[in-house]
Amino acid sequence: MPMINTFGVIGGDERMKYLAQSIAADGYPVCVCGLEKLGTCRGAAECDLPQLAAKSSVILLPLPATKDGLFLNAPYAENEIRLDDDFARLFMHKTVCGGMLQRLTASSSLWREIEPEDYYRREELAVGNAIPTAEGAVGIAIREYPGTINGAKCLITGFGRIGKNLAIILRGMGAEVFCAARKKADLMQMRAFGVQPLTYREISRRFDLIFNTVPAKVLTSPVLMQQTRDTLIIELASAPGGTDLKRAEELHLHVIDAPSLPGRVAPKTAAEYIKEAVYNILEE
Amino acid sequence: MPMINTFGVIGGDERMKYLAQSIAADGYPVCVCGLEKLGTCRGAAECDLPQLAAKSSVILLPLPATKDGLFLNAPYAENEIRLDDDFARLFMHKTVCGGMLQRLTASSSLWREIEPEDYYRREELAVGNAIPTAEGAVGIAIREYPGTINGAKCLITGFGRIGKNLAIILRGMGAEVFCAARKKADLMQMRAFGVQPLTYREISRRFDLIFNTVPAKVLTSPVLMQQTRDTLIIELASAPGGTDLKRAEELHLHVIDAPSLPGRVAPKTAAEYIKEAVYNILEE
Amino acid sequence: MPMINTFGVIGGDERMKYLAQSIAADGYPVCVCGLEKLGTCRGAAECDLPQLAAKSSVILLPLPATKDGLFLNAPYAENEIRLDDDFARLFMHKTVCGGMLQRLTASSSLWREIEPEDYYRREELAVGNAIPTAEGAVGIAIREYPGTINGAKCLITGFGRIGKNLAIILRGMGAEVFCAARKKADLMQMRAFGVQPLTYREISRRFDLIFNTVPAKVLTSPVLMQQTRDTLIIELASAPGGTDLKRAEELHLHVIDAPSLPGRVAPKTAAEYIKEAVYNILEE
Amino acid sequence: MPMINTFGVIGGDERMKYLAQSIAADGYPVCVCGLEKLGTCRGAAECDLPQLAAKSSVILLPLPATKDGLFLNAPYAENEIRLDDDFARLFMHKTVCGGMLQRLTASSSLWREIEPEDYYRREELAVGNAIPTAEGAVGIAIREYPGTINGAKCLITGFGRIGKNLAIILRGMGAEVFCAARKKADLMQMRAFGVQPLTYREISRRFDLIFNTVPAKVLTSPVLMQQTRDTLIIELASAPGGTDLKRAEELHLHVIDAPSLPGRVAPKTAAEYIKEAVYNILEE
Repeated sequence: MPMINTFGVIGGDERMKYLAQSIAADGYPVCVCGLEKLGTCRGAAECDLPQLAAKSSVILLPLPATKDGLFLNAPYAENEIRLDDDFARLFMHKTVCGGMLQRLTASSSLWREIEPEDYYRREELAVGNAIPTAEGAVGIAIREYPGTINGAKCLITGFGRIGKNLAIILRGMGAEVFCAARKKADLMQMRAFGVQPLTYREISRRFDLIFNTVPAKVLTSPVLMQQTRDTLIIELASAPGGTDLKRAEELHLHVIDAPSLPGRVAPKTAAEYIKEAVYNILEE
Repeated sequence: MPMINTFGVIGGDERMKYLAQSIAADGYPVCVCGLEKLGTCRGAAECDLPQLAAKSSVILLPLPATKDGLFLNAPYAENEIRLDDDFARLFMHKTVCGGMLQRLTASSSLWREIEPEDYYRREELAVGNAIPTAEGAVGIAIREYPGTINGAKCLITGFGRIGKNLAIILRGMGAEVFCAARKKADLMQMRAFGVQPLTYREISRRFDLIFNTVPAKVLTSPVLMQQTRDTLIIELASAPGGTDLKRAEELHLHVIDAPSLPGRVAPKTAAEYIKEAVYNILEE
Repeated sequence: MPMINTFGVIGGDERMKYLAQSIAADGYPVCVCGLEKLGTCRGAAECDLPQLAAKSSVILLPLPATKDGLFLNAPYAENEIRLDDDFARLFMHKTVCGGMLQRLTASSSLWREIEPEDYYRREELAVGNAIPTAEGAVGIAIREYPGTINGAKCLITGFGRIGKNLAIILRGMGAEVFCAARKKADLMQMRAFGVQPLTYREISRRFDLIFNTVPAKVLTSPVLMQQTRDTLIIELASAPGGTDLKRAEELHLHVIDAPSLPGRVAPKTAAEYIKEAVYNILEE
Repeated sequence: MPMINTFGVIGGDERMKYLAQSIAADGYPVCVCGLEKLGTCRGAAECDLPQLAAKSSVILLPLPATKDGLFLNAPYAENEIRLDDDFARLFMHKTVCGGMLQRLTASSSLWREIEPEDYYRREELAVGNAIPTAEGAVGIAIREYPGTINGAKCLITGFGRIGKNLAIILRGMGAEVFCAARKKADLMQMRAFGVQPLTYREISRRFDLIFNTVPAKVLTSPVLMQQTRDTLIIELASAPGGTDLKRAEELHLHVIDAPSLPGRVAPKTAAEYIKEAVYNILEE
């Protein structure tokens, strides 16, 4: 019989390994499955799926739970984990948490009964993930831009979570930071961050670095035409992003697509954020 | 006949003088009235009320427009300006903007027809005002706290506009900054600011400086009892504030009430923010 | 007979009171004299001079030890303390530390034998004092400048200890910071601080705030002529400072002389720095 | 005959290409040689060595000028450039600037007459290079450390140019920054940077990230034994560095050697610094 607060962690990438280890370090029993190729998980017991389901009261699925709707997202598993009624049935009457669950819940009608919780919808996780996203973007800029960030003329499009964090870091490095947004209150708020506000009509000028965080075509031809080959454009918005890629290619501009940074540059911290979101779900 | 975009500025404090001067510097005709004791306004014509009303198409009233509902808020006027139907009638068919208008509009039924715009309700003004508020609070802390801000253990209660700006400035001065908030997403966001998050249950410990921005009793007896006579509490929330003042007095704690900082510490910048809000109103 | 590490604190301002209290809090016996008007010193015993001399092995004199060479610098003493051979004789064969000792040691030939240590010459104290100096200057700027520091165009002349600390704080507040220095390496180093370097030939332009830290006439007529009445000049260099005061007056510019900020804005922290310097002297 | 201020740039890495381009963009004639594999240099004429020597009045050699004392440091040259009397003779009666010249000047007795200037000895260049060094180190930390820099416990050993710049950037990213130094004044100065000072006796505790800038064995066994496998040690001091590498290996610690960062992460900016140093040499 599953014990209260025994966690079963299934599939995913390095984040799930760190997640399992961190929950175990908090003193809870943890079973893992589908992370075989990442080596042993300190403090967690390796199980097969039926064992894990039998022992665990809380099931943690990866982020995203599935990429294709057919198999669990488990690139480090020895064997593929098929999503079907048999898989879903394992988790009846359990608390199930996972990230981006739409395609998972479409894989079996049983999920309607299980009612899994989507930790990716938690605002605190979105806020948290903006931190490694901004750091990762700055890491790319340091590596790929041939000058220093210090003194570079930087444009951030969008003043949401990621834009704000980028502004803080870039200013701290001595860059000259401009930020574009639509809302008048955002343009005002930028001043407190030491950032120079621009409307989208004002961004058609030369920058050394452009960080796009807006999922709408804001880096259009007139903006791109002002840039030179030394300009580095880092695309942080989810596909198709905010850059007119066809035009950028014609102009031979350097555009780097940088999706999913939290899991790639800071899996350990990203796992901590997921853990906090899960704990908050369980408390509520 | 009034010209389009002739501004009439009436009453108020130093901000209204800077406002008149700044609008005049933008090239618009400006009449002023009720600021006599502040000396001449560069670029603006001094008028009496009827003249001003006759010449101006846009009327700018102070913030707040009135304190008592009987007279216009005009501490630097030679003569009191009574709020009644005669006063209101001057502004029929004009664009009137003022700050905190409830008691003004109650002074004559004509205001219902005039439909004055409250610039104080503009989000960009609220965001702007948080900047001099935070600066003013830090100015008080520098002057009144017997140690340096550098190295001081600071608590900010609330992570709204003022709280965030305080966090940025205090961190930049090398303080050890803690911030309390209720929302989990706010507690997460604090990390990006380099601030240590606390729930309200965790603030009962000793601090050197406490900045309250929350209009709810958060600095209760258990918190106050942890403080010493060197602790400085700066109250930034509007009356009655967030400090249990009776308890603070019993404990001989040093509490400074600091309302309305923008107009007091940075009237020139506060006027710029009002101007931008007014221009935005006129554009819309 | 005096005990090892019994401290006698004599005269001075609030700093000496905080110094006595802080040493007492470290567990050492402390006698005080000449601070009567500041009320009781927690943890320290009030004595008269002969008692203090009898009991103490380490004597701490104020900063500066004397202003006129005739009396000890003791504005909060009940009675003046005359500097003569009788006074000096009290401290024969003791460790005496004080600040700025030239005029004191000239007051009696006995001082040559006593060999008092000047803690004001310690580099760590000078470095420390630059922190409250920069904070105090910013506090003045917040209070006296009619706009916000945020967005203000600031010039710092000199990139020594105070200049660097000012640069850090002003940048953290979102000011636009320029700094003037002579050395090419300093001009380069400013970039790491996010500050725009200027040579002294380039500073003849308009600024909102000017902080002078250089004890040489750098704010000359051509610089002053570019400023307006809203410009605030804060003079931090010791008299006669770096501003052409006569010319500034002719131009009706606003100059604030701000000497001795550490003792005035942060006596508690300034006392900590003195204590550390004294402890370092005793260890060596 | 060579014209005044015609520059001949020979060999080196990407920096020399950017250097040639930047000088050309300033309006001076520039010849290049020994950079063939990096493609065309905008604004500069490709020459062979004798042509370049004939045309140029100022010769710029790479940094370092040579690695082995036998050939010029020219990894992107089509053909090796041998250092001998024939090579040196080309530059008689010209102004020659290069970096780290000891082994070059040993390659021919003619150099004694030519008296080449070592731009690498310029303090402004050393100060400048500390900026990309700090940025590059942070870029490595972002990429290699599995958590975020935000919230990470960081130790910087040494508070020289690189240490200070690291402190500024890491604080701006929300890290918890500790710094170790020997001098008491440095320990005091750290406070202004918002950094927690440690003596070398106090660093034997766990950190997430350690940046060594000191060319002396400061990361000894007792320090290393406190670290875990997640700790990342970045070695910035020139070989043999400050880490007990044998002990670190026994403990399976993750040490990254990161020499010569300016040329690798920011060749364009590094070239600007060299250009400024060269211009300063020519002016003096």
